[in-house]
Amino acid sequence: MNFKMMGRFLAQILSIEGIFLIPALIISLYCGEAMAVQGFLWTLAVILVLVLFLGIISRGAPSAFYAKEGLVCVGASWIVLSAVGCLPFWISREIPSYVDAFFEIVSGFTTTGASIVPSVEDLSKGILYWRSFSHWLGGMGVLVFLLAFTGGKGQGFTMHLLRAESPGPSVGKLVPKMRTTAAILYIIYVVMTILNVVFLLLGDMPLFDAVCTALGTAGTGGFGIKNDSMASYSPYLQNVTTVFMILFGVNFSCYYLLLIRQWKSVITDEEVRTYFGIILGSILLIIWNTRGLYGTLEETIRHTAFQVGSIITTTGYATVDFDLWPSFSKTILLCLMVVGACAGSTGGGLKIARLLLLLKSARRNIRRMLNPRRIEVVRNNGAAVNEQVLDNTNAYLSAYVVIIFLVFLIISLDGFSVGTNFSAVLCTFNNIGPGLEAVGPTCNFSQFSDLSKLVLSWAMLAGRLEIFPMLILFSRSTWKSH
Amino acid sequence: MNFKMMGRFLAQILSIEGIFLIPALIISLYCGEAMAVQGFLWTLAVILVLVLFLGIISRGAPSAFYAKEGLVCVGASWIVLSAVGCLPFWISREIPSYVDAFFEIVSGFTTTGASIVPSVEDLSKGILYWRSFSHWLGGMGVLVFLLAFTGGKGQGFTMHLLRAESPGPSVGKLVPKMRTTAAILYIIYVVMTILNVVFLLLGDMPLFDAVCTALGTAGTGGFGIKNDSMASYSPYLQNVTTVFMILFGVNFSCYYLLLIRQWKSVITDEEVRTYFGIILGSILLIIWNTRGLYGTLEETIRHTAFQVGSIITTTGYATVDFDLWPSFSKTILLCLMVVGACAGSTGGGLKIARLLLLLKSARRNIRRMLNPRRIEVVRNNGAAVNEQVLDNTNAYLSAYVVIIFLVFLIISLDGFSVGTNFSAVLCTFNNIGPGLEAVGPTCNFSQFSDLSKLVLSWAMLAGRLEIFPMLILFSRSTWKSH
Repeated sequence: MNFKMMGRFLAQILSIEGIFLIPALIISLYCGEAMAVQGFLWTLAVILVLVLFLGIISRGAPSAFYAKEGLVCVGASWIVLSAVGCLPFWISREIPSYVDAFFEIVSGFTTTGASIVPSVEDLSKGILYWRSFSHWLGGMGVLVFLLAFTGGKGQGFTMHLLRAESPGPSVGKLVPKMRTTAAILYIIYVVMTILNVVFLLLGDMPLFDAVCTALGTAGTGGFGIKNDSMASYSPYLQNVTTVFMILFGVNFSCYYLLLIRQWKSVITDEEVRTYFGIILGSILLIIWNTRGLYGTLEETIRHTAFQVGSIITTTGYATVDFDLWPSFSKTILLCLMVVGACAGSTGGGLKIARLLLLLKSARRNIRRMLNPRRIEVVRNNGAAVNEQVLDNTNAYLSAYVVIIFLVFLIISLDGFSVGTNFSAVLCTFNNIGPGLEAVGPTCNFSQFSDLSKLVLSWAMLAGRLEIFPMLILFSRSTWKSH
Repeated sequence: MNFKMMGRFLAQILSIEGIFLIPALIISLYCGEAMAVQGFLWTLAVILVLVLFLGIISRGAPSAFYAKEGLVCVGASWIVLSAVGCLPFWISREIPSYVDAFFEIVSGFTTTGASIVPSVEDLSKGILYWRSFSHWLGGMGVLVFLLAFTGGKGQGFTMHLLRAESPGPSVGKLVPKMRTTAAILYIIYVVMTILNVVFLLLGDMPLFDAVCTALGTAGTGGFGIKNDSMASYSPYLQNVTTVFMILFGVNFSCYYLLLIRQWKSVITDEEVRTYFGIILGSILLIIWNTRGLYGTLEETIRHTAFQVGSIITTTGYATVDFDLWPSFSKTILLCLMVVGACAGSTGGGLKIARLLLLLKSARRNIRRMLNPRRIEVVRNNGAAVNEQVLDNTNAYLSAYVVIIFLVFLIISLDGFSVGTNFSAVLCTFNNIGPGLEAVGPTCNFSQFSDLSKLVLSWAMLAGRLEIFPMLILFSRSTWKSH
């Protein structure tokens, strides 16, 4: 590991975080929230000291990045980002325990949306904004931001970082230059977020609410600013949120393809088709299963579509307490949690592209078992998939299953029910937010022990960064200096 | 598909089942159980008719077997075996519903041990014996029996069948001839079962109880003949059962290696070491977690070792209601359910050999991701593993995860809790038996709907036959005649 390189890298990341803290500070100043202002100022001071220190020790760092260094830096930078980003919560005493504050900001950056705050309406505006903004920053990725707008040096640097931070089994370039790709993605992201705010304002939502809600929707995060999440907003606002949640779960490359008028490749894209197919199928099944639960068909459809969109994109907003739904509907939601959204979107989970690859590769291997002399390649949208990608996807599934069981085991030490623990693991690891039973949409994660909160924080990071950057931090060879 | 070949094959399987029904008939005659006698006689009559019919239509069948035919025949023969084997339960009216009777015998043959009988002590002796014997027959495999003692024709036939019916990622031959291998395995199985009976008799267990208990232990099945499973037996009898359960979870090849004095290759076998390591670790963790629950340390160790041995080998006997244990201990048991016993044993689950392969292949792929130019093979006990085996293992995991979620989804239609449904799926698919909550050791599966019972029966068969033979029955190309 080249520590100098890592130092320079962390300094850049922390600087970006510092810049993004300023709007939150301004909101707190405007609203006259003295404690929150103090929290933000102290945090900025800590960042300044750290950046100076890292800047001094990392002088003369080389600029070539290898695959391994890329992964390690991504893992480390998200931890540092969270360890510093939670300081405003803690210093302002709005979240008195540091572990709780850390859990909360990890939940924010990873766009999980699981909360330990018992009543979010008691939080100050500045803190609420920072909480929602963490979703937005984490959604598209802070390193991608760094890459897009400050320009990392070296082609290796950019490719390895984008691979490590972007969700999905393989990362394609939209344009020959990686940096331009990142910038295009971020511009689409910004424009869609602004559109979301506008549509919410048209429904008479207050500006602050609209901005925070849109930030949480765009990042598919799910931190609400009301204790009942989205339940008290008007049907129009709920429907707008449903549509935008689902749109933010689509691979962002599709929007670029639409912009350059390649309609056909979007419409025939297997992942997009499967994504919308699963959403539609789940909505129909749940409508059938929850018939009679709500007064009108409109209400049933609205709540069902909202919850399905919220869970499959791993946002985690809620308009109703779906823990009260029948078992079958709850199980569909649990399955959607695992499936997740499209690769290359801000959503979490296993990702549909990966699921398709796993199923196709399983089918191919079964066929080969029956017909050993047959040669067959796995195809995605008609093109043959590299065997290395398939191997990685299989390794991903193995690691995914093992981590679920390990985290499940550790948090069960707290003694909650099997259903609570299992859905808590699925919800954090897949970056969803609320789960079922004791971590259902009307409850929160504050009841867990500090150990469980830290393990679940690790699970959220592992889920967001697609496991490997968080696993590699535990490897001995990573920390050998050479 | 060659239907003539399949017909001849099914006729052979049914003949064996008929022969094995005779001891049960004799027991019923001896005990004067009129209804049970009627059940067995009618079943024998049905078998006779079927065998004659199949014999006529399958005249002139070819003897060469291909991989695919092998899988299809294995899948079909287990279904036919169960559809006929459950007739005594149903005709004797001891289990009045045919679906229930089918579930019960599938649970028997697959060595699951999940029961729909509310009070087993009400069953007649002949029926109890047949129920326990189904574990024994299913444990080592009825096709392996066919192969070992009647001699299938053609080398392709034997290899493909043994592959399809024997648990584990790869089947090795002990001796050059497959038929001799099968015979050696069965002889070891018989001798160990007899030893188990002898040890139980030494503890003053009645002969009938000893035989039934040993049959259930040998097949790692878990059908008990008492309502409280093994709780009312003496500590000695419980400990004997613990030891034999664990021994029947070891790869049977190891016993052959011990017989020919290859001690070293057994002691250094990775799977065996991992198996005993997991057992020891789980016992220690649960002893620590359940401290204070039982009066003495001896009792704690005895119950813990019994339950761990019972769950990891997927037997399913119980001496205590482990659903009352703390969450952490329950979660360990849930994890053990997934892990399962050694490949080539009578136990179920994912199998430790397969788990090791998955972990090693994941580690290799992660390393290759970091160091693309590095070439590395996965090794098992020092020898390189064929890439095809790795591919199959990965396909297995994908299919395993998908099936768990599908079955979970379907049975949730009955409306039980998430914990109940999830553990019901794990328990049937991994061939364990009792689960947690509403399907815990003191409850049973009779509350599920007929649809759920059939789906769970399919899951048990898929678990026992390692998925592919049960999947291939759904493939269109399987049923094309050519």
